[in-house]
Amino acid sequence: MVNYSYSLRSSWDMSLLRSVVAATQKSAQDLGLTSSALRNSALLAIAAQIAQHQEQILQANAQDLTQADQLPFALAQRLKLDSHKVQGMIKGLQDLAKLPDPLNQRQIHRELDTGLILQRLTCPIGVIGVIFESRPDALVQIAGLAIKSGNGAILKGGSEAVHSCQALMQAIHQGLREVGIPPQVLELVTTRAEILEILHMDDLIDLIVPRGSNELVRYIQSNTKIPVMGHADGICHVFVDEFADLAMAVAVTLDSKVQYPAACNAIETLLVHQAIAAEFLPQVVKALQEKGVELRGCDRTRHIVPDLIPAQESDWTTEYLDLILAIKVVDSLSEAIAHINQYGSHHTDAIITESAANAQTFQQRISSCGVYHNCSTRFADGFRYGFGAEVGISTQKLPPRGPVGLEGLVTYKYYLNGKGQTVAEYAGAGAKTFTHIDLRE
Amino acid sequence: MVNYSYSLRSSWDMSLLRSVVAATQKSAQDLGLTSSALRNSALLAIAAQIAQHQEQILQANAQDLTQADQLPFALAQRLKLDSHKVQGMIKGLQDLAKLPDPLNQRQIHRELDTGLILQRLTCPIGVIGVIFESRPDALVQIAGLAIKSGNGAILKGGSEAVHSCQALMQAIHQGLREVGIPPQVLELVTTRAEILEILHMDDLIDLIVPRGSNELVRYIQSNTKIPVMGHADGICHVFVDEFADLAMAVAVTLDSKVQYPAACNAIETLLVHQAIAAEFLPQVVKALQEKGVELRGCDRTRHIVPDLIPAQESDWTTEYLDLILAIKVVDSLSEAIAHINQYGSHHTDAIITESAANAQTFQQRISSCGVYHNCSTRFADGFRYGFGAEVGISTQKLPPRGPVGLEGLVTYKYYLNGKGQTVAEYAGAGAKTFTHIDLRE
Repeated sequence: MVNYSYSLRSSWDMSLLRSVVAATQKSAQDLGLTSSALRNSALLAIAAQIAQHQEQILQANAQDLTQADQLPFALAQRLKLDSHKVQGMIKGLQDLAKLPDPLNQRQIHRELDTGLILQRLTCPIGVIGVIFESRPDALVQIAGLAIKSGNGAILKGGSEAVHSCQALMQAIHQGLREVGIPPQVLELVTTRAEILEILHMDDLIDLIVPRGSNELVRYIQSNTKIPVMGHADGICHVFVDEFADLAMAVAVTLDSKVQYPAACNAIETLLVHQAIAAEFLPQVVKALQEKGVELRGCDRTRHIVPDLIPAQESDWTTEYLDLILAIKVVDSLSEAIAHINQYGSHHTDAIITESAANAQTFQQRISSCGVYHNCSTRFADGFRYGFGAEVGISTQKLPPRGPVGLEGLVTYKYYLNGKGQTVAEYAGAGAKTFTHIDLRE
Repeated sequence: MVNYSYSLRSSWDMSLLRSVVAATQKSAQDLGLTSSALRNSALLAIAAQIAQHQEQILQANAQDLTQADQLPFALAQRLKLDSHKVQGMIKGLQDLAKLPDPLNQRQIHRELDTGLILQRLTCPIGVIGVIFESRPDALVQIAGLAIKSGNGAILKGGSEAVHSCQALMQAIHQGLREVGIPPQVLELVTTRAEILEILHMDDLIDLIVPRGSNELVRYIQSNTKIPVMGHADGICHVFVDEFADLAMAVAVTLDSKVQYPAACNAIETLLVHQAIAAEFLPQVVKALQEKGVELRGCDRTRHIVPDLIPAQESDWTTEYLDLILAIKVVDSLSEAIAHINQYGSHHTDAIITESAANAQTFQQRISSCGVYHNCSTRFADGFRYGFGAEVGISTQKLPPRGPVGLEGLVTYKYYLNGKGQTVAEYAGAGAKTFTHIDLRE
């Protein structure tokens, strides 16, 4: 039975923080060697603890909400838990337990020579630092991903969600204890000062995953030697080609902008080919304005639809995260591609066209993580891609990029097993040669 | 016919450098869309040009060597070209042309729903900056890897190799021209000032690969926002377990230290289990001293072999790159693992033991890129692993790590092709569900 009359520990003593993280690292090394069955049973035990203590969790959340008067409406909505959201957390953990084990996957199995066998096996990264904002359900999702992938984690929730996060963390720790996993493998920190400390612990923390505002992500990228996985901006585009089905173009533009404007995969700029601009712009402007979208147009757009606010140069690089859209008329497919590669954030960009050749050119030439043809940019999401759980979305050039599932939380090691072989035998006169035979099984 | 009476252009005008790199970026975007056949024919054309102009290349190299009087012997050896080394460059390019195309590999092919098809395809990274020291043959190897993987590259050779690099670059450019690839896709820079400039061009360069001294690598890691792939130190270990075959342990230790002491995968520290130390140490010390290795021992080592130089704490973290080895007696397998994880550089570490259980514990608990059992650490190499060409060796926690072949020079994009699908159809009441069917073929 968990004792929920815990004392509020709003932050670690700074002098203790390093030893707390060191204990997480040590526990993580053991977790990485546990069986898939044990890690999955931990996920189910955590789910059961959350179910059992739903009332206490909702009470803690109510306490956070009473102190959240000044929070913007959208943030308060994300902070608020209800039984439906708690059921979602439980279901998420149960689904995660069903996914294949990301650890000990053999990626290479090769005989280098008789009795000299190379294997590449996946293994945990170590300790992940994850910073998320007010959504307490993110805590449970990330804790689950860390356990499934055999990693320790230091979790930093929003300060406005401190009671909710602590109540959830108690349930998570109790679930871990039940199956014999040391609870310190996952630790909660709640203050910005603690995160600043942790950014310097590059000998203990192996990866930072910031999920939050552009400013937060940029700050972290510039203030740590630890690798950072994530994205700052999401400047996504729809380009309506001269060969577009205009009804489809209106529908996809609308979905890409208004279905959830605060998402990183919602569009900020609509590019329209000049050949269809006079016909298309009035249709799409009407549809967007009916949904309350504020539109900012370039000169050529405003020549066709005069009432729009003039777009500034800064509009092409602004992530509104709101019901605002910039519109630009372009002369050609090439100009659209050049605009997106210059001003975009390499997240997700779509072309609407019936021309297979133009779609191919667009998808090959755009250097973004997601290059779409005739569908909404909002599909850029780990769940929709069928990855199950999602760590985050990366817009880096190097892998992992785009929506990242469990593969972003594992790395690999090369195992080489021999019988005393030395490199000298394979060098110089009379050298043995490598066989390099890939082994099946 | 190449005009080899070129004027010596020892560095770019700084104000031009940015436009040179921008031209490389633009050419690289085109190169990434060429066929595998064209890129392979470019490799063969470059090989033919090098063969045809071997005399001019060797003359340029002779000019570098006359100015290399003050170079340390090892550096001068690496700088010196002969017909054997030139044949090696040609063979390397021909072998590279035979490797599978790393581009357009389909890693995921999945129906998200009827008519909504997700694909993950490999693509080039963009422009790579590679910094290497005096070996002119490295220039050819890296140029070949860049062309094969569809990337542009800015190549910085050692200033002492400037004539050799320029002669090789002329042959490379001529080979590219012959098959219709713009030569500016590969550019040579020769001064440190140019590299400092390039480290700031994070909008044009996508990856830096430093191949050189620890100081060079650390400097670059601390002075650029561009991702860096490589390694600073190579502090590798052999641990001789209490259940080791001692003759094998002597042979593997010897090979790991003396076969090529300047390599990053040569060992710097030998750890010996106390249970066999009295028997093993005299044997291994004799064998190492016969090869001219200077030995530095911990107190317990010197209790058994009194004449050794006392090892200092700093010896456990020093990469000698020379015929020097530190030796430490440890109480247990656990102490060996803890020592390696604390002092090592996560490159490659080996255990010598006849105990399968101890080998497994060692290989699972050591967090290095290479974890070996009963074989020399010197096997840590892309060619020996069967990767063909090697970009470099990475000791980072995240992939790619260990010896990195062409896979380190490609990334991927997600292609999503639909028929006008919107996310709204998959949300709320009456939502469609995703099928998530992996497609064969």
